[in-house]
Amino acid sequence: MGRKIPEATIRRLTHYLRCIEFIKEDGDKIVQSRDLATFCDISDSLVRRDLSYFGEFGTKGVGYPISKLEDHIKKILGLDKIKKTVLAGVGNMGRAILNFPFIKNGFQIVAAFDVKKALIGNKINNVPVFHIEDIKEIIKRHSVEIGIIAVPQKEAEEVANKMIDGGIRGILSFALLKCPLKKKVPIRYIEIAAELEILSYEIEKEG
Amino acid sequence: MGRKIPEATIRRLTHYLRCIEFIKEDGDKIVQSRDLATFCDISDSLVRRDLSYFGEFGTKGVGYPISKLEDHIKKILGLDKIKKTVLAGVGNMGRAILNFPFIKNGFQIVAAFDVKKALIGNKINNVPVFHIEDIKEIIKRHSVEIGIIAVPQKEAEEVANKMIDGGIRGILSFALLKCPLKKKVPIRYIEIAAELEILSYEIEKEG
Repeated sequence: MGRKIPEATIRRLTHYLRCIEFIKEDGDKIVQSRDLATFCDISDSLVRRDLSYFGEFGTKGVGYPISKLEDHIKKILGLDKIKKTVLAGVGNMGRAILNFPFIKNGFQIVAAFDVKKALIGNKINNVPVFHIEDIKEIIKRHSVEIGIIAVPQKEAEEVANKMIDGGIRGILSFALLKCPLKKKVPIRYIEIAAELEILSYEIEKEG
Repeated sequence: MGRKIPEATIRRLTHYLRCIEFIKEDGDKIVQSRDLATFCDISDSLVRRDLSYFGEFGTKGVGYPISKLEDHIKKILGLDKIKKTVLAGVGNMGRAILNFPFIKNGFQIVAAFDVKKALIGNKINNVPVFHIEDIKEIIKRHSVEIGIIAVPQKEAEEVANKMIDGGIRGILSFALLKCPLKKKVPIRYIEIAAELEILSYEIEKEG
């Protein structure tokens, strides 16, 4: 793993995982680079180049043993061990998150947080809901690695800093965070409005 | 607008819009490039370079008139006219989408679609829900430009092709689409699992 891996390759690895999930459901045990290429609408050679970052796989013309490829990609992405995760904000988006089977991707949501009294003390999809004031303590106690932020924009920065106080290692946020936060940790965003706006730009460009 | 605008600039324009929304709430009428820079955790000079793609704004040392800057960014992104939008899939994620005030971003959701009988004929947040079989017809009739896909992965490709049959100009999808579709239109993805997986990789890389 000496070479630096481009971010575009890392993203495509996640697409290969989705493709592998499909293929496994069909009961196949071998995957060809062209299956991955077709699924992702890219070239065979790009797939082979991506996989070559991680040494040799499979036999030329025969394909890759699917479970070995899956294990390898998961290991590269750090998904070979379950990552404890918390969710801040149990509105519509938060509930959607709690309904995703993220555990199969390697993420276990151990607790959710909100400010609404009616929610606190309940369980949603087996995940207990606590008051947001307890988030630092619970992150610490359970060595939670990832925090998902689905609170309103105005509260997002404060929640992020509380997560950081608890020792969170990375944040996925649906709200744009005003930087800088207390400490730099990896942050990724789900920007639904931005994606629509960029799509609008792309549509106008197409004419 | 002679020069080609990099995608990273387009994305930052959406961040500047978010920043402008904040600043407007505070009642300010002028924005400095350093306000945008601080919000986005980037350099002043990058902000000024981004804005220079679109000609001269503001007066050196004085800043940009906020409503003029907002109008200009919206025009670049094609957000100066409302874009009619449909939503396929009224599960948890679909409901979260219907609760977003996308209209302020320039997107009006005119109809939602599902297969569940109990939902069809109802209105959710004033948006009528139809059977997915009607999607092509309604897109055509109302000249809908954008389709949001929030159906299960297995149904996503078929729904995308129905949208394309109706003449949709662009798609935002929460499910990865197996390509190629019937016709190439701009597609953007919201990939929650992928973002978590990339975050996992970034956390492991930090060590």
